[in-house]
Amino acid sequence: MSRYWSPFVKDLVPYVPGEQPKLSQLTKLNTNENPYGPSPKVLEVIKAEATDALRLYPDPNSDVLRHAIADYHDVSIDQVFVGNGSDEVLAHIFHGLFQHNKPLLFPDITYSFYPVYCGLYQIPFEAIPLDESFQIRIEEYRGINGGIIFPNPNAPTGCFLGLPEIERLLTVNNETVVVIDEAYVDFGGESAISLVDRYPNLLVTQTLSKSRSLAGLRVGFAVGHPELIEALVRIKNSFNSYPLDRLAQLGAAASFADQGYFEQTCHAVITERNAMVTRLAALDFQVLPSAANFVFCRHRNRDASELAASLREDGIIVRHFSMPRIDQYLRITVGRPEDSEVLFTSLQRILATT
Amino acid sequence: MSRYWSPFVKDLVPYVPGEQPKLSQLTKLNTNENPYGPSPKVLEVIKAEATDALRLYPDPNSDVLRHAIADYHDVSIDQVFVGNGSDEVLAHIFHGLFQHNKPLLFPDITYSFYPVYCGLYQIPFEAIPLDESFQIRIEEYRGINGGIIFPNPNAPTGCFLGLPEIERLLTVNNETVVVIDEAYVDFGGESAISLVDRYPNLLVTQTLSKSRSLAGLRVGFAVGHPELIEALVRIKNSFNSYPLDRLAQLGAAASFADQGYFEQTCHAVITERNAMVTRLAALDFQVLPSAANFVFCRHRNRDASELAASLREDGIIVRHFSMPRIDQYLRITVGRPEDSEVLFTSLQRILATT
Repeated sequence: MSRYWSPFVKDLVPYVPGEQPKLSQLTKLNTNENPYGPSPKVLEVIKAEATDALRLYPDPNSDVLRHAIADYHDVSIDQVFVGNGSDEVLAHIFHGLFQHNKPLLFPDITYSFYPVYCGLYQIPFEAIPLDESFQIRIEEYRGINGGIIFPNPNAPTGCFLGLPEIERLLTVNNETVVVIDEAYVDFGGESAISLVDRYPNLLVTQTLSKSRSLAGLRVGFAVGHPELIEALVRIKNSFNSYPLDRLAQLGAAASFADQGYFEQTCHAVITERNAMVTRLAALDFQVLPSAANFVFCRHRNRDASELAASLREDGIIVRHFSMPRIDQYLRITVGRPEDSEVLFTSLQRILATT
Repeated sequence: MSRYWSPFVKDLVPYVPGEQPKLSQLTKLNTNENPYGPSPKVLEVIKAEATDALRLYPDPNSDVLRHAIADYHDVSIDQVFVGNGSDEVLAHIFHGLFQHNKPLLFPDITYSFYPVYCGLYQIPFEAIPLDESFQIRIEEYRGINGGIIFPNPNAPTGCFLGLPEIERLLTVNNETVVVIDEAYVDFGGESAISLVDRYPNLLVTQTLSKSRSLAGLRVGFAVGHPELIEALVRIKNSFNSYPLDRLAQLGAAASFADQGYFEQTCHAVITERNAMVTRLAALDFQVLPSAANFVFCRHRNRDASELAASLREDGIIVRHFSMPRIDQYLRITVGRPEDSEVLFTSLQRILATT
């Protein structure tokens, strides 16, 4: 540690993103990217904006994009906050909307960035165990808390919690903010955005990185009561006035205008996921029910980290977490049918050897 | 204030960026954008990257861009940190590299985002008055402090402080981090990056928004000792793993490869600035010596806010700050020669009326 650091920096345990290999011949099933590219209309809009206009600052309020999101989700523009990826949106939420003097509640197995944000903003937290089948037990989220957050579908399990359960939580927990992180909701879940008008403490986050194939553009958003959004706007305007560049604002907005492409690619991913589940089960994997663009599975008698290493030797990257309870699981992103062929050819070979 | 806000949010006084009008027929001389577009090579690179590759996350470490900056400034890659505009870089610096239990020192007339960051991270500060001719008095920055920051050239004055003065400061202040914010340095200043190898507490920030005409792309960076950079990397990886999208990383890197275009456009801005200074003086304005792409001036007997309002009626936007000491000044961005014609035609008309 350097004597020039602010003291809390030495205790930070940063988030470790999945590997972004620089070799393109790998079959990359480790960071839940969409195997299909973004809508061609998005690419057209970006190319058309790559002009001298880049000399000018973007709209600090991202009005065109916020309008597109508001229209799509049938809310008003003052219920929408946008950020540089949903990770930035989440950071501002942890900073400005959770109470820092009481523990934040989230599942023990969940998006591993949550405890990192707690470190950054020095928020105490309590990890609530999932049940034995890795499901969220909503009745456990009742204690005194400074806020509640979980992904739905959860990560890395892929399991979806129905909206009636979320309403049950909101009914008993109305003193603090409840955040539903819907990064993967478009692959088979149902969004809690339909509930925000009834629960002023509910905030829903989504990203364009997964179902809209724009991980490389960095756009995420939150939808909730205008008073919650105002806190995020205040933080944003005290941090960085212009978090979204001109290309990202317009490209992201164009994505919401191409519903046909969106539905077609989501459908293709869901179809391939279901095929993967069947094939994995046939190879003696236990697979958790997934409503996401990945599957979370364990083999009945092969070690997960060894399987991951063997796949890697065949040029296939999947995600393995060396963490309690899930160290025998692999998270495998759903790819194109041809990616699955590569994956299953390799898995069959690996499992045939002893 | 909502009961769902973290308590500090209600006290935030966010930064107010200059107006970004949506009418294109205005002569926009209010936010120090470059009147010339980015290098055509930057636009080519961005268009070439607007492909299916956007489905993939960007390089979280922005290696290509950091290499380009390191090569350009003759430092090593571990001395370079990049962010989503220099505003984001500054935010992380305030959070992680200033000591929060002692006052941060910066000029009383300076970039108005500095006290905003102090509000966000709850850092005490002391504003050190510029002298009567609006120059930084380096000998005033000697007290106990949690860090020191100022722009060089300063904003909104445009005045440049020579490197010997900065070295004088670094010689006496080696216990805390000194940040030189060089947003405008390419228009006539000299960068303190040449000093970073000798002063481990010196951090220099720059942006691609001004001299590289990429305000719309949001890229800034910091150069300093690897231990200072490591603190920023830890904060960044605890906040948002992927702050720069694929288009911004590659477009920004391409800018450093087109030295000819960079020099030509900087030269055109400097030439036009010098012409503006002469013409303003002829119209009875006092103009501070500027090393930036704007001039800061006051008329000898006309009220600044009334002048700004009259210019606005003619479709010309300049920046007026309703703040002590400078409320009789206007900050006018240097445009193209044709922008100056519009400006001076209007000013002559306004000044001819009583």
